[in-house]
Amino acid sequence: MKGESIEKLSDYGVLGFIKINLRGVAQVMFQPSAWTGLLFLVGIFWGAYATDDAPIAWGALLGLVISTITAFILNLSTDDASQGLWGFNGVLVGCAFPAFFDSSIAMWLSLVLCAAFTTWLRVGLNRIMQSWRVNSFTFPFVLATWIGLLSAHAMQSLRPIHHSQIITHHSHHIQAGMDNFWELVQAWLNGISQVFLIESWVTGAFFLVGLAVCSRWAALWAAIGSALSMCIAALMNVPTSHIAEGLYSFSAVLTAIALATVFYQPSWRSAAWSILGIVVTVFVQAAMNAWMLPYSIATLTAPFCVTTWLFLLPNIKLNR
Amino acid sequence: MKGESIEKLSDYGVLGFIKINLRGVAQVMFQPSAWTGLLFLVGIFWGAYATDDAPIAWGALLGLVISTITAFILNLSTDDASQGLWGFNGVLVGCAFPAFFDSSIAMWLSLVLCAAFTTWLRVGLNRIMQSWRVNSFTFPFVLATWIGLLSAHAMQSLRPIHHSQIITHHSHHIQAGMDNFWELVQAWLNGISQVFLIESWVTGAFFLVGLAVCSRWAALWAAIGSALSMCIAALMNVPTSHIAEGLYSFSAVLTAIALATVFYQPSWRSAAWSILGIVVTVFVQAAMNAWMLPYSIATLTAPFCVTTWLFLLPNIKLNR
Amino acid sequence: MKGESIEKLSDYGVLGFIKINLRGVAQVMFQPSAWTGLLFLVGIFWGAYATDDAPIAWGALLGLVISTITAFILNLSTDDASQGLWGFNGVLVGCAFPAFFDSSIAMWLSLVLCAAFTTWLRVGLNRIMQSWRVNSFTFPFVLATWIGLLSAHAMQSLRPIHHSQIITHHSHHIQAGMDNFWELVQAWLNGISQVFLIESWVTGAFFLVGLAVCSRWAALWAAIGSALSMCIAALMNVPTSHIAEGLYSFSAVLTAIALATVFYQPSWRSAAWSILGIVVTVFVQAAMNAWMLPYSIATLTAPFCVTTWLFLLPNIKLNR
Repeated sequence: MKGESIEKLSDYGVLGFIKINLRGVAQVMFQPSAWTGLLFLVGIFWGAYATDDAPIAWGALLGLVISTITAFILNLSTDDASQGLWGFNGVLVGCAFPAFFDSSIAMWLSLVLCAAFTTWLRVGLNRIMQSWRVNSFTFPFVLATWIGLLSAHAMQSLRPIHHSQIITHHSHHIQAGMDNFWELVQAWLNGISQVFLIESWVTGAFFLVGLAVCSRWAALWAAIGSALSMCIAALMNVPTSHIAEGLYSFSAVLTAIALATVFYQPSWRSAAWSILGIVVTVFVQAAMNAWMLPYSIATLTAPFCVTTWLFLLPNIKLNR
Repeated sequence: MKGESIEKLSDYGVLGFIKINLRGVAQVMFQPSAWTGLLFLVGIFWGAYATDDAPIAWGALLGLVISTITAFILNLSTDDASQGLWGFNGVLVGCAFPAFFDSSIAMWLSLVLCAAFTTWLRVGLNRIMQSWRVNSFTFPFVLATWIGLLSAHAMQSLRPIHHSQIITHHSHHIQAGMDNFWELVQAWLNGISQVFLIESWVTGAFFLVGLAVCSRWAALWAAIGSALSMCIAALMNVPTSHIAEGLYSFSAVLTAIALATVFYQPSWRSAAWSILGIVVTVFVQAAMNAWMLPYSIATLTAPFCVTTWLFLLPNIKLNR
Repeated sequence: MKGESIEKLSDYGVLGFIKINLRGVAQVMFQPSAWTGLLFLVGIFWGAYATDDAPIAWGALLGLVISTITAFILNLSTDDASQGLWGFNGVLVGCAFPAFFDSSIAMWLSLVLCAAFTTWLRVGLNRIMQSWRVNSFTFPFVLATWIGLLSAHAMQSLRPIHHSQIITHHSHHIQAGMDNFWELVQAWLNGISQVFLIESWVTGAFFLVGLAVCSRWAALWAAIGSALSMCIAALMNVPTSHIAEGLYSFSAVLTAIALATVFYQPSWRSAAWSILGIVVTVFVQAAMNAWMLPYSIATLTAPFCVTTWLFLLPNIKLNR
């Protein structure tokens, strides 16, 4: 088996392997395009270095490659491999571990274990969910990372960067505000960059361009998702700094892309449905923040997963 | 599609629409009867005004209509509509929001969103559960309202009536006791009225009469469920005031009706099975109270849903 | 029906009934052997009396018989009965209640209810899980006991032995250490004895011998599971006393037996897969400890169930 797997892997060649890994980065936002993935990766590196969190970028790269290779070792679907579907959970695990934990051997080994784990988690969760015709989305990343974050309460080898408030790990940067138009724009782009746990408006801009390269609809809806979720969060009076850091938008961005461009064809009806999805995502985000608070761990992209499941499960026919 | 939906809705006429909404109220306790719904609604209005919580009654009405109309807009099953199955989650959401939150524009908008949400939540959850031959019961209401209650921790536009103890929101009335026979009877009827989050023995009496109009078995088992759950709760030494307020009985009432009269035919065997169900519901109620305590939110009717699922899933054949 | 059930039960005769109950004890570690069960039971009695927790032994016996008889009363599969599959959840409930609660009438009645409950819980959970080709394992025990432990927060008739720290109920014995080789061996055997919530190296030795009587592979992997999980837990710096008490090993022992000997044939590949499973179980154990902490209840064998599900669900083909 192992021999066969390596054979399949070598069929791709070096360039092919790089390509499916780049697609893996792009698939976090549902785009099967290596160019999109490249722009995303540039954005990640920019953001990681700009916020003095370089390990996030290298972790992203490591997690990506590990989870992709794991699929070959376990002899899993090469169709999914070509589409980059084995990489997107791993790259997120790779961003999350250095974002929440200090660099240490135990942290990097846990990152590798966790990234590999997402690969067979995805197979298992999809097997359960396919009978309901939904997908596990980024939930393998969420589940594996939650296990990692929670276990740090008992495992002292995993040292949280901010022990008391993992949930707002981003706030160790300069306190974000929203007092003028430019700060609003930054908050709006932060909401997009936070999909990869990075708070940087430049990264957000890279992500928007990366999306546009593959699908203008996706770029448009990412933009709408971030803007609209900011409005709802502001109307409902959540802490302003959380909005400014993009913490109420990143899940809504993913819900928007998923509902408006992936699972429904763009139309006025699907637009209304997606806007409803964005609004609900903000409530689910607030609710999950409260739920996680006693454990001081982050919701990650769980609000996106949960909301999108709840909007896809009823199998509502919007277009005739 | 929208045109078609409105056509279907207008087929019912004004009286027909009122009828399916009244059935929606009655379906909270599994009765497909408009008369039962009318008596329930009278009980709700009486109880809401008697406890100075008028918004509960108007919220119930609003939630009911919103969730029913949502089903037509989404072009969902009109068979279910005729049976009142689109209204029972909405009416409960409508009771819950004003019971837990101060009246405000944000609260009423959230109520409308949440009531509409239960409609497609029910479709989605039923799709998952039908392969196990169980129903989502009132869980769409529970899930949507939990999201609302939890999100209030972050969203300051939603102001809890009693910030520190949402779980015992009812105790702002005169402290209930159980020192004489009359107070015991009140507690017993409170257990029935609390199904709609109201603490009023008059309301409980209206509910019993409403049940009897449609099914005497249902009325009998509601009565047994409330009485027996009080006994078990007292034997296990839970706080007396919680028993007096009916907080250990409302889920048991629903379990009793469901197991003894809806999913099994009345018989000695199903009676024994239902009594076991009532006992387990009290333990699940106590367990979920503890589980929710760090978040100070209510269990709502989740103990009923969970227990009834666990008693229906094994598909035990009681009658030959 | 009842008549028929008792007929079926009497078909077994006294010796036959004892046999299927002993198999029930053995099935906690997947062995369908009455001899293994007998050795386990001797180990339980030794350990319970050695740690001054005699009620644990008698509770185990009571829970075992109750859950087995319940299956006959409900007229459930006699094939499962012959294999001892109705007893293993009940025997664990019977160990857990006296381990966590003071002896009282309410405690013993709750134990009986809870043990009986596991029988139809198992049918229900297996019905859900069979479509994913996994089994509920010891989760009926876990779920029923969690309900019991949580409900004690509200039900004062259930008195926790150590109110403030149910999670480490074992530490009322002499503080365990790991300062020399002999203490390491004790910790290693404790990890096996804790499967039945007992901290006693003699009990652990009885369990190992009991396993070897039925399957040497199972004994070997129980030994590996306990040793390896200790190493991982030590590497990740969890509290030493928890390792010494076996609290990081008991779930890993079960994962090891399940993956390496029950669901996969012994081979180098399945060995690697099982070792991965053991490592992940330690992380899940740490994570669930943190998750349960606000409620001060034990994870029981949930980390084993969760990890083994996540390793079986993907249905990875290891042997060709």
